[in-house]
Amino acid sequence: MQRARNVHRVTVPPVTSQSSTRDSDRASALGRVSASSTELSLAGLSVSDLVAEYGSPLHVVDMADLDRNAAAALAPFRDAGRGADVYSSYKTNPIPGVLGRLHDAGIGAEAISAYEVWLALELGVPPERIIYNGPAKSQASLRQAAELGVELVNANSLGDLRQMIAAADSVGSVMRVGIRISLPHMWGGQFGLPSTSSDVAVSTRLAVDSPHVDLIGLHFHSGFGLRDDAAVTMHMQAVLAFCDELRLDTGFHPEVIDLGGSLTVPTVISESRPSPLSRLANRVRRRPEPAPLSSGDIITIAQASRLAWELVTTHFNSHDLPAPRLVLEPGRSLTGDTQLMFTTALDIEDSGSGDEAIRTVILDAGVELAEPMRGGGHATLNTTRPDARPRRHRLVGPRADAADVLVSEIELPTVERGDILAVLDTGAYFVPFSTASTFPRPAVLGLEDGVVSTLRRREDLTRFTEFDPS
Amino acid sequence: MQRARNVHRVTVPPVTSQSSTRDSDRASALGRVSASSTELSLAGLSVSDLVAEYGSPLHVVDMADLDRNAAAALAPFRDAGRGADVYSSYKTNPIPGVLGRLHDAGIGAEAISAYEVWLALELGVPPERIIYNGPAKSQASLRQAAELGVELVNANSLGDLRQMIAAADSVGSVMRVGIRISLPHMWGGQFGLPSTSSDVAVSTRLAVDSPHVDLIGLHFHSGFGLRDDAAVTMHMQAVLAFCDELRLDTGFHPEVIDLGGSLTVPTVISESRPSPLSRLANRVRRRPEPAPLSSGDIITIAQASRLAWELVTTHFNSHDLPAPRLVLEPGRSLTGDTQLMFTTALDIEDSGSGDEAIRTVILDAGVELAEPMRGGGHATLNTTRPDARPRRHRLVGPRADAADVLVSEIELPTVERGDILAVLDTGAYFVPFSTASTFPRPAVLGLEDGVVSTLRRREDLTRFTEFDPS
Repeated sequence: MQRARNVHRVTVPPVTSQSSTRDSDRASALGRVSASSTELSLAGLSVSDLVAEYGSPLHVVDMADLDRNAAAALAPFRDAGRGADVYSSYKTNPIPGVLGRLHDAGIGAEAISAYEVWLALELGVPPERIIYNGPAKSQASLRQAAELGVELVNANSLGDLRQMIAAADSVGSVMRVGIRISLPHMWGGQFGLPSTSSDVAVSTRLAVDSPHVDLIGLHFHSGFGLRDDAAVTMHMQAVLAFCDELRLDTGFHPEVIDLGGSLTVPTVISESRPSPLSRLANRVRRRPEPAPLSSGDIITIAQASRLAWELVTTHFNSHDLPAPRLVLEPGRSLTGDTQLMFTTALDIEDSGSGDEAIRTVILDAGVELAEPMRGGGHATLNTTRPDARPRRHRLVGPRADAADVLVSEIELPTVERGDILAVLDTGAYFVPFSTASTFPRPAVLGLEDGVVSTLRRREDLTRFTEFDPS
Repeated sequence: MQRARNVHRVTVPPVTSQSSTRDSDRASALGRVSASSTELSLAGLSVSDLVAEYGSPLHVVDMADLDRNAAAALAPFRDAGRGADVYSSYKTNPIPGVLGRLHDAGIGAEAISAYEVWLALELGVPPERIIYNGPAKSQASLRQAAELGVELVNANSLGDLRQMIAAADSVGSVMRVGIRISLPHMWGGQFGLPSTSSDVAVSTRLAVDSPHVDLIGLHFHSGFGLRDDAAVTMHMQAVLAFCDELRLDTGFHPEVIDLGGSLTVPTVISESRPSPLSRLANRVRRRPEPAPLSSGDIITIAQASRLAWELVTTHFNSHDLPAPRLVLEPGRSLTGDTQLMFTTALDIEDSGSGDEAIRTVILDAGVELAEPMRGGGHATLNTTRPDARPRRHRLVGPRADAADVLVSEIELPTVERGDILAVLDTGAYFVPFSTASTFPRPAVLGLEDGVVSTLRRREDLTRFTEFDPS
């Protein structure tokens, strides 16, 4: 399959300021109350021109930022001479143009459904660079994984392991498998075998004894963000202690320790630290709350993987055992800060007075497109009127629905009807969590060296044919 | 456009029980631990056969129930000789086959986006049977509404009204408009003009004086469910008092009072009262909590609209004024109980002991498909094993994500791997709120007289082409 990003390349002429005539025309078309002579630009491109050409709302991906994040994630492993052991969580950002770029940069694919396995293969990812996880693996997809020789399939439960063995048996292949373990400090519930369960030893022996699978790994996804050195160290010590116990109990020593994604998913930090895309906006004056944490507290993806790697190596060297390969499955930390979303103010309504005064802005993007904004922490800019007087705003979506509130309170340069806002750090869970039932899906653009390409077309009204089986 | 439901009609032979041989085969294919010799059926159709043919998860719409609900909603108006003044909220259930059936039964279209207006026209709804609402009407769609002569366009704000006037002016048509009012007991925020705002009189005079619009209506959507006689009466008294005040202030008397949808959206009741679809399951033994409220407390759609109609007529007759037409825009109450969803248990995990024992069931439908289940109250059946011993279950989805929990605790006949559950009353907000990013979208079937038709095909992996602009 040809990469989407190469198919429909459009050059938008760089514009550094709007002439007042031009701006006045635009203001009239959008029904703005007043016009300003300046606006923010994105890598030299006029935001209003981008929106005029590609529609609003609009997603924009900074392709170079994907390279930068991939390099940071891979560096510790490359330094250690262990090759690339980082796999991108497809569910976090399923845009093929994004995934393809990450794969080009040496990142593998972490899939949790038959569809995601199919997508990885379609994107040209070799089977040995695909990890298949999750509690919902279909029999057909497990047979395919066994036949193709997927790098690693992690069993979510004893029952899941039995399904995997049956699938491998049915196609006469040997599947490379891991077992997902839930330690007490990690997500429990439906995720993995509780470390205290007798199923752990049962599963280990079943896998070791089965001629249909090759047990190579153990999977430990914290689920809770590991934000600093201490948290990573604590997590790794628990993982390593568990490996020792399991070895004493069953004799099994893993070739691979898969740490899942939480090692590098410090959500709030990801959302509040200065974003590379925010630097592209040439006149950013300040960022709204929450303020970035002290950078000294934040562990980067590179620091975290390096620390984990050192702890693993030291530990097993002291036991005269080969250190397992480390596998990471980051999502948010790979893509979160590589994307922004433009959205237009359709209407404004003022209420309250004095300290209670607040301006409600009805945007053309609501929870249908920007559900993760409800979690807070996404810096937002008024690109049209960056110099306007700051005031309190409430940001709501276009649905006739009281639940369609994105931000209850945020300080922004005063927003007028027709202004274009930029929401930063939208690269994780914005596109995949979109419902887009009432409004067609917006375009997704890739941006590189001042040139935009179309990663997803803006949906037109024929989306309706989804329902027509003719 | 040909109606989807007529295109691909498939007859599934009625089956009232499974032979033990057949069931044993199926049990093996699904990896079930044990088999039972009976299962629930749907209008004589085997649930397991339906799922085998159309896939799981699976939505099924009872077409006759749509007729029944439409007739109940229309009856009071037909009795009063006023014609049909009920419009279906498209955002609640956007399935064209569902909407087409409601339109055939005399229901109009209530749209809140350009896409929904387009969809209504595509379904053959005459413009004079379309109402256009919401805070996000595009200029292009407003011009179209003016040109076509849409029945009613409700202004959400003074700014919105100005846009509507500008659109009508630009195409040289006169738009039939209403003004949305927010009374103190109703949703506020971005919805309509606060009744206490000076913008109400300003907007009324602006619309009355404009040659481009014909002000015919006032719109009052409570937002909060009106569940009984007292709530409807209180709501209507406030509406009528406002109409009197506005008339004294501006001289304007509405031809139309649009009550929106809340009159007939008693959510919890809708979800917990006995569902017609549950009666189709031929061996329903009991319904889980929450128990249905006493039916004496619940006001039906027919009772509510009749009561509102009587209050309006009596009030304005006493003022020697013509009674306005009443318009209803129900959503949930028209479609909520006409649909069910089948979902399959992919895996089970037991935890706790004694009173704390609970079985976690990993389903192939999670929040991606069934987000409204998190609100609770959806009766759920084990169709495969209806006679099994009841026990506590936790229902979770297939995503590798701790937030993918549908029901924290529910008593069901013990669920085993491969069992098919039926979730009832899924006709409102299940399909439109679906994200389906990790798993392709399931089929939607129409069911009538024991015959199924395809309202939406099961999505295959080529959904991926959504991203490929070639």
